[in-house]
Amino acid sequence: MELTAGVLTITAGGKRIVILNTETAAQMGVHVSDRVKLTYAGKEVIAIADLAADFPADRIWFYLEIAQALGVSGDEVVEVQPAPMPESLGNVRAKLRGERLRDEELFNIVRDVVEQHLSDIEISAFLTALKIYGLSMSETEAMSRAMVETGKALSFGKAPILDKHSVGGIPGDKTSMIVVPIVAAAGYTIPKTSSRAITSPAGTADRVEVLCPVELSIDEIQVVVKKAGGCLVWGGALELAPADDLFIRVEYPLGIDPLLLPSIMSKKKAIGATHLVVDIPTGTGAKIKTATEAYTLASDFVHLGRHLGIDVHCALTFGDQPLGCCIGPALEAREALNTLMGDGPPDTQEKALSLAGMLFELVGEADGRHKAEEMLRSRKAECKLRQIIEAQGGNPKIKPEDILVGPEHAEVHAQEKGRVLWINTDGIVQVARAAGTPKEKGAGIILHAKLGDSVAKGSVLFEIYAERPSKLEAALKLARRLEPVVLSRKPEERMLLDQYPAKLGEREKNATLDR
Amino acid sequence: MELTAGVLTITAGGKRIVILNTETAAQMGVHVSDRVKLTYAGKEVIAIADLAADFPADRIWFYLEIAQALGVSGDEVVEVQPAPMPESLGNVRAKLRGERLRDEELFNIVRDVVEQHLSDIEISAFLTALKIYGLSMSETEAMSRAMVETGKALSFGKAPILDKHSVGGIPGDKTSMIVVPIVAAAGYTIPKTSSRAITSPAGTADRVEVLCPVELSIDEIQVVVKKAGGCLVWGGALELAPADDLFIRVEYPLGIDPLLLPSIMSKKKAIGATHLVVDIPTGTGAKIKTATEAYTLASDFVHLGRHLGIDVHCALTFGDQPLGCCIGPALEAREALNTLMGDGPPDTQEKALSLAGMLFELVGEADGRHKAEEMLRSRKAECKLRQIIEAQGGNPKIKPEDILVGPEHAEVHAQEKGRVLWINTDGIVQVARAAGTPKEKGAGIILHAKLGDSVAKGSVLFEIYAERPSKLEAALKLARRLEPVVLSRKPEERMLLDQYPAKLGEREKNATLDR
Repeated sequence: MELTAGVLTITAGGKRIVILNTETAAQMGVHVSDRVKLTYAGKEVIAIADLAADFPADRIWFYLEIAQALGVSGDEVVEVQPAPMPESLGNVRAKLRGERLRDEELFNIVRDVVEQHLSDIEISAFLTALKIYGLSMSETEAMSRAMVETGKALSFGKAPILDKHSVGGIPGDKTSMIVVPIVAAAGYTIPKTSSRAITSPAGTADRVEVLCPVELSIDEIQVVVKKAGGCLVWGGALELAPADDLFIRVEYPLGIDPLLLPSIMSKKKAIGATHLVVDIPTGTGAKIKTATEAYTLASDFVHLGRHLGIDVHCALTFGDQPLGCCIGPALEAREALNTLMGDGPPDTQEKALSLAGMLFELVGEADGRHKAEEMLRSRKAECKLRQIIEAQGGNPKIKPEDILVGPEHAEVHAQEKGRVLWINTDGIVQVARAAGTPKEKGAGIILHAKLGDSVAKGSVLFEIYAERPSKLEAALKLARRLEPVVLSRKPEERMLLDQYPAKLGEREKNATLDR
Repeated sequence: MELTAGVLTITAGGKRIVILNTETAAQMGVHVSDRVKLTYAGKEVIAIADLAADFPADRIWFYLEIAQALGVSGDEVVEVQPAPMPESLGNVRAKLRGERLRDEELFNIVRDVVEQHLSDIEISAFLTALKIYGLSMSETEAMSRAMVETGKALSFGKAPILDKHSVGGIPGDKTSMIVVPIVAAAGYTIPKTSSRAITSPAGTADRVEVLCPVELSIDEIQVVVKKAGGCLVWGGALELAPADDLFIRVEYPLGIDPLLLPSIMSKKKAIGATHLVVDIPTGTGAKIKTATEAYTLASDFVHLGRHLGIDVHCALTFGDQPLGCCIGPALEAREALNTLMGDGPPDTQEKALSLAGMLFELVGEADGRHKAEEMLRSRKAECKLRQIIEAQGGNPKIKPEDILVGPEHAEVHAQEKGRVLWINTDGIVQVARAAGTPKEKGAGIILHAKLGDSVAKGSVLFEIYAERPSKLEAALKLARRLEPVVLSRKPEERMLLDQYPAKLGEREKNATLDR
């Protein structure tokens, strides 16, 4: 059928959607979500039909993406025909029936997600089915490979390539900023790509950005890694396994995370990692709550790594409270720099040394922990970080006190004397975000008391930093309501940890995004 | 945060979506699919956030629905705040985890589907989880009730109210047009609402529309039923259980149908039915392929009816070929009228008498079949149909030959002599649709040979009718390719029924819609 093109002035977020009048579609036998083939001036595009009763019957409406792909700007006559449904939708339907999918079938799906040939409805159904049925190891491997193959890749032309990843969930976890320089200082290659915070107060990319640019191109990364042996860059725009972001967009409102493993491992495969340490923070404050969950996940990581040709070791780490004292991009960058200069909080130093040591032993060093300590004590790791900062375009001579925090700040005091019984990490995250993190880099929290510490009445429990008075005020108000640092002299004086029902929006918010 | 309103010139199909700049959303801590509360001039609206990088940072963009609800036309300053996720989304998430939902939780979901507070992603995940986990009987009942309560209802102030429904799938099934007059002729109330064809060549509403208007309001239906005891109207715009259409929209691309029972039964409950016969055509040409499936479905209908206060009996009917000889709105209307005038094909008459008889016995008549035959033989049923036609605004004196078909038509002949071994109903549907059904009411097929019939070489297998030569040509071409009427002298001469792989688009098209 020939229809006249109408062009809408907005994009559809990359989605390949056209809008047809309901009657016109019925005449063509096209139902909502059916595919149509558009032909204009020798070009062919397949799009998903959306229907509207209030659009003119002799027209077809394009969002900007399709209009550009087809080369129309409005009022052209376009040939519109029903098109068969994509093969990948047949594969999605098979998964809804509980079938195990083969490699090429999963590849079809991932490719059509990346190329926007599947709708939100279809992707959502696929992810829900994966969540409910689970993935076999061969499906997990196939998804990982498909996610690699539909994206770009880094190549350094040598081996081994080391990497470190955290499944996340711990505020203040600046370990990568310390591990990467330690490992690179020993002469190994560690091209670390990181994410920005989405639901947390800071991602590694946000922290590093306080010291130097992190939005490097693939070519620039190759240069930095050749020069410094390592990098600390934002992975978001590199199109390494781009399917991941498209899946996360759909998983987020559902609070499900069925592709955690392929999502992480495809990114590692895409940068060419051969040896990987995965940090699995475990505890009430972490994403992974119990040891059983942590060991299952660890075992899956190791197995998947074997299938993908990556030697994986997992670290189960203490996840009951924030790491170190500082939370927020600038505060954490300062704390990481201090740690490399020999003046960091003990838990941060200990965790970084453990993980770096594991990486060293993974590539055959006899005493990895010792090697890591040597790199730290000798200040070789500090030098290495400065070299990376310089290579990425920052100031290599930066001192901790040069890093700007605040300028607004306030203290939260203990109302009574006691011991720190519990730190509610979710409360800490909320207060830090109310203060302006991750967007306002000088915002954040400094903890003055951690688990088990004794505090006197009136002493400082934590400080809040913000860039604007209004944000400081909001964060303080929230801190007083949430009381994230819980004191108790004896357990029997504070048996009530929480009450139910709580506000739904606070309780169900999920951390699917920060993987 | 205060943002300036921008109003898009299109609707979002009822969906409550606003578009925010990605950065602006990040500053508010709002992620894609999060809810935002919009406040303007004392009005509050909750909407779902969609994000776009290419929209201005200081603006919020509204589709027409939200703009109207909030009373903005562009350039007003609107207060935008993150809002908690709706309670129903928490319930959806619980279903994804496999939890059984309680009545009020399912009601939350259905209400928020109807009020467009849940996104396609969320509805799709919910329906997929229902499809995989299945629904308990109490969940099925709760869904049915919720679908009734979120829509309008008919009330005739008396009992019993009889009804008849077919789960569908048989081309040419015009039984309702015969059963309704038979039942009403005996003095019973039978307010029949029907659907239009979506994937089939004709729905009951399409057939009846050949004789009289079917798009009546609820008030008009009350008048017709008071006058004639029955009606044959289109149920689509009456807002009886409107959740159904919203669910079907999402189920269609997925080819799933988890709400078949609540969907049908909620519509019956909404018109106040107390006694219902459900026709379950069973066979290779039908939606339900095996007797086992059919009995399971029948049992579920009866049980659900008991919970909802509807006395349900199910009829398993022969579903291996089209019903009667005529397929297409006008041809079928003519065949139904002929049947009521004593001159219908035997299978059509037999089926209508069986179903009407079951309904009579359901309300206590001793010999229902006999009663049905009496209504038909005495022409009381014919008179009743004419009375209904008049009450709905049509010509009560219409003769079968007044009904226009064609005018284009062609015959398809047997290439050899033989017996009809198999009629591919899907092929018949495709040919009829290629000829122009259901939109072009004069289009369709007349079968001259049915299962078991012997045909001579060169005799007519079927005729194709169309309103336009081009459609006739397309239908003929398809008929020659598909050969929907399969002849065989002996089975060993025609062992190949189909080949695999077939074209995907043809094979996977589903009939979810016509329920």
